[in-house]
Amino acid sequence: MSPYAVGIDFGTESGRAVLVDCEDGAELGAAVYPYRHGVIDERLPESEVELEPDWALQDPEDYVRTLQKAMPRLLAETGTDPADVIGVGIDFTACTMLPTLADGTPLCVLDELRHEPHAWVKLWKHHAAQPEADRINEVAAERGEPWLARYGGKISSEWFFSKALQILGEAPAVYGRADRLLEAADWVVWQLTGRETRNSCTAGYKAIWSKRDGFPSDDYFAALDPRFGRVVDEKMAREISPIGGRAGVLTEQAAGWTGLRAGTPVAVANVDAHVSAPAATVTEPGTTGVIMGTSNCHILRGGRTATVEGMCGVVEDGVVPGLFGFEAGQSAVGDIFAWFAETSVPPEYHCGDVHAALERDAARLRPGESGLLALDWWNGNRSILVDADLRGLLVGMTLATRPPEIYRALIEATAFGTRVIVEAFESAGVPITGIVACGGLPERNRLLMQIYADVTGHEFSVAASKQTPALGSAMFGAVAAGAEAGGYDTIVEASRRMARLGPERYRPDPAAHAVYDRLYAEYVRLHDRFGRGGDDVMRTLKAIEAEVRG
Amino acid sequence: MSPYAVGIDFGTESGRAVLVDCEDGAELGAAVYPYRHGVIDERLPESEVELEPDWALQDPEDYVRTLQKAMPRLLAETGTDPADVIGVGIDFTACTMLPTLADGTPLCVLDELRHEPHAWVKLWKHHAAQPEADRINEVAAERGEPWLARYGGKISSEWFFSKALQILGEAPAVYGRADRLLEAADWVVWQLTGRETRNSCTAGYKAIWSKRDGFPSDDYFAALDPRFGRVVDEKMAREISPIGGRAGVLTEQAAGWTGLRAGTPVAVANVDAHVSAPAATVTEPGTTGVIMGTSNCHILRGGRTATVEGMCGVVEDGVVPGLFGFEAGQSAVGDIFAWFAETSVPPEYHCGDVHAALERDAARLRPGESGLLALDWWNGNRSILVDADLRGLLVGMTLATRPPEIYRALIEATAFGTRVIVEAFESAGVPITGIVACGGLPERNRLLMQIYADVTGHEFSVAASKQTPALGSAMFGAVAAGAEAGGYDTIVEASRRMARLGPERYRPDPAAHAVYDRLYAEYVRLHDRFGRGGDDVMRTLKAIEAEVRG
Repeated sequence: MSPYAVGIDFGTESGRAVLVDCEDGAELGAAVYPYRHGVIDERLPESEVELEPDWALQDPEDYVRTLQKAMPRLLAETGTDPADVIGVGIDFTACTMLPTLADGTPLCVLDELRHEPHAWVKLWKHHAAQPEADRINEVAAERGEPWLARYGGKISSEWFFSKALQILGEAPAVYGRADRLLEAADWVVWQLTGRETRNSCTAGYKAIWSKRDGFPSDDYFAALDPRFGRVVDEKMAREISPIGGRAGVLTEQAAGWTGLRAGTPVAVANVDAHVSAPAATVTEPGTTGVIMGTSNCHILRGGRTATVEGMCGVVEDGVVPGLFGFEAGQSAVGDIFAWFAETSVPPEYHCGDVHAALERDAARLRPGESGLLALDWWNGNRSILVDADLRGLLVGMTLATRPPEIYRALIEATAFGTRVIVEAFESAGVPITGIVACGGLPERNRLLMQIYADVTGHEFSVAASKQTPALGSAMFGAVAAGAEAGGYDTIVEASRRMARLGPERYRPDPAAHAVYDRLYAEYVRLHDRFGRGGDDVMRTLKAIEAEVRG
Repeated sequence: MSPYAVGIDFGTESGRAVLVDCEDGAELGAAVYPYRHGVIDERLPESEVELEPDWALQDPEDYVRTLQKAMPRLLAETGTDPADVIGVGIDFTACTMLPTLADGTPLCVLDELRHEPHAWVKLWKHHAAQPEADRINEVAAERGEPWLARYGGKISSEWFFSKALQILGEAPAVYGRADRLLEAADWVVWQLTGRETRNSCTAGYKAIWSKRDGFPSDDYFAALDPRFGRVVDEKMAREISPIGGRAGVLTEQAAGWTGLRAGTPVAVANVDAHVSAPAATVTEPGTTGVIMGTSNCHILRGGRTATVEGMCGVVEDGVVPGLFGFEAGQSAVGDIFAWFAETSVPPEYHCGDVHAALERDAARLRPGESGLLALDWWNGNRSILVDADLRGLLVGMTLATRPPEIYRALIEATAFGTRVIVEAFESAGVPITGIVACGGLPERNRLLMQIYADVTGHEFSVAASKQTPALGSAMFGAVAAGAEAGGYDTIVEASRRMARLGPERYRPDPAAHAVYDRLYAEYVRLHDRFGRGGDDVMRTLKAIEAEVRG
């Protein structure tokens, strides 16, 4: 009997637990728990409290229910003896953060705070903290903060201190009540192990921490708001646990929830995108993992640091110990296609799978044939412009334009967005030697993969696993267990044994690439004009909308 | 028994005959013939010959079938004695033109030319003659042709000589075979009366003719192409019949087709938009008629001529004798809404009337609330940019954008387009004292009318008649008969007695107007940037598309 590891991937809409064979990475079973409250973006659960635009919350009890529902089902359905499970790892969307009491109790479960939006978990795509992000960037630029370069020159509204500062500014009482502010990932590990830890991946990528310099100074935080000066010591921690380590072992309570044995090693928490990289074989310098789903996340290994415009961050040991991990992202990809399929496609496409019908018709079109071009900013732009206020644009419509043409233009726009990121790395001297895609989109949409290859001029491989985050988490679980217990001592070793590529290779077609070069030139011009301040129409429309909505 | 007149409106998809009481303009009945071949834009009827993009043809036999089918049905259904019908008028889309033999036989009915696209009727929205229009404008500007100012500085690809020059360039044999090139409107009057006439309205607005200066010189036409130098004398005529006159009387053959009496007076042909103006009470200087349907046509009376940027034309006696008639246009309005409803709306809106459902939800939005802005160029821009190569643009989409928001943004975009035209007239010193809407849209879409009022800051009235072109044609039929026969001697008199306004008044809401002022400023900036040469992305996309499609 091989030793097993469990990976639990906490996503945007559901949690997924996967059982993996530590010897060869075979995935033996999976169980999914769809969150009861999903993404909370209209009103608080069982409440009349309406949320402002750009808000996106989650319920921390959905995470516990994932442990209570999915895990026992996984063990039962696979007939697994809990004694054979040598380690558990988890990964999460990020920055997804919440305020708690000193004992870890989320503020939103307290009766007196249940109707206060700021007491809930702020999901990664909560975009209402843009004013706070603007202030963070402005003050950092004024003070010449050295860490700003590590994040491409801009901190995002999605990140930890933007969200924390929003709580302080809009709900000072909630902020005051919060003994702890932490990533949901670390909160779940706390529930599993009974110990509060802080993982180096979210600290580095989302909370401006680095192994060499720690957090920004108290002076800096005080310059944002005097009450914010001691946020790290008051509500966070300076001790950061490196990924690849062990956070602790399962408590009796958590063993009761999950059906696993108390004492089972639990890995330090990690981020879904970052944990996917070793699960997609991406461990060498120069290889890039693109995790493609509702959004795209680009994870690149580098042998040295570099300043890359608009990247989300570079963190030493951020993905694989010993290397610099670069992250960049596109804030909406699959989300745009889903939006289109749901809101913009007439009945004749709804007989079966809407996406399949659109892909079939879109695949018949040649590059450039639609006459359409889009800017893929339906959810702002994470890299390289780092601006949540940007919005979508579509140009070239005629009375003859048909849905598959728009669908293809939207795919192409996200591919152009990927190319902007790839070129930003290359022009900063960070070479890209190979690209591996993983996530939900590559297996579902071959047209999309070919368009990405044709647009970027790079060959795309695809990870064999269809659930790389959970596989990666299981790999980290095996590392938490260690070689002696039947696991591994490093994530690189685990990756060599447990991760592999699928058979697909998407190679750029030179003729298509030539046409896309011309369309890309148009994309870049519009990108710069609407994204870098030449034309502020998107911001103006958003401002008028905000005024009108009051 | 009152005397009656018949108006026949030849539209884009069908022909409509209406019986009108000459005393009070009461509409006693209508009969519609949907053209068997409708708009021919993919392949020739009963043929494998495919058309290029931007082509749009019609079948002249559909016009004859309208006379043969709709007219007898109208008489039968209303129980009318043909002896009580004192006059007939017709109106047409324009420029809709065709090549014929000397006896009026359309070239496309000849066996040897039936498979030749250039032998068919070129419909108004045939847009494939843009290169010819470019050349017409370039040569005119080089030579300093004085008539260019009458047409806002640009001749459209939709007009007569652009289309004629395309025939010459692409199908010289067809051009050579054509003894006559003429408007379909005049061709139908020829079929009714047995006499070829040329009406002053299409000659003035579509074929660069003026009462004072006639046509452009032979030298000019020869500069376009030596073979084109004598086009007027060889294939057209210099004798132009003023509107409001009598073209002739019904022949025995036409009486047989229609059921009317041989000898019934027939008015000089006219254009649908222009004939609508007196039917909407628009006969005084300063009043504007906006004929709103698949496209918008703006008809304005002025006491003097003026140079207005991008107007379609100013023609003395062009609409009402004794005044200057200005025309401007928006090449797609209802067509855009139809495109959206047909291609971009999910199943839940398709339970009943899609437009009604969209209007209902869009009416709940406040100006600016959608955060969206569009350029209404799905079919190019007729006024004031006069550029068929321009295309649509939509900006501001987020993942929360819903179909009624886009629908409203499209309505608003066409209203902004109307405001650009209104302001072009005003800034050229042509005052606008009142606006009357007519056509299919105003009665169907109250939201649209209110948005037009709010965007322009002008009050909109609506013509009482729901079929103003046919009513206007009947009025011209009554004028062709004359007062002695129970009709009228002038169209102004006929308008006073036979036309009226409906009860609706759409008054601008000051708060909405203030928001729209801000959105309009954004519209104008994008309009100028994408329309006047600052950013050529639309043209570039069109050029790449044309190359790819080969």
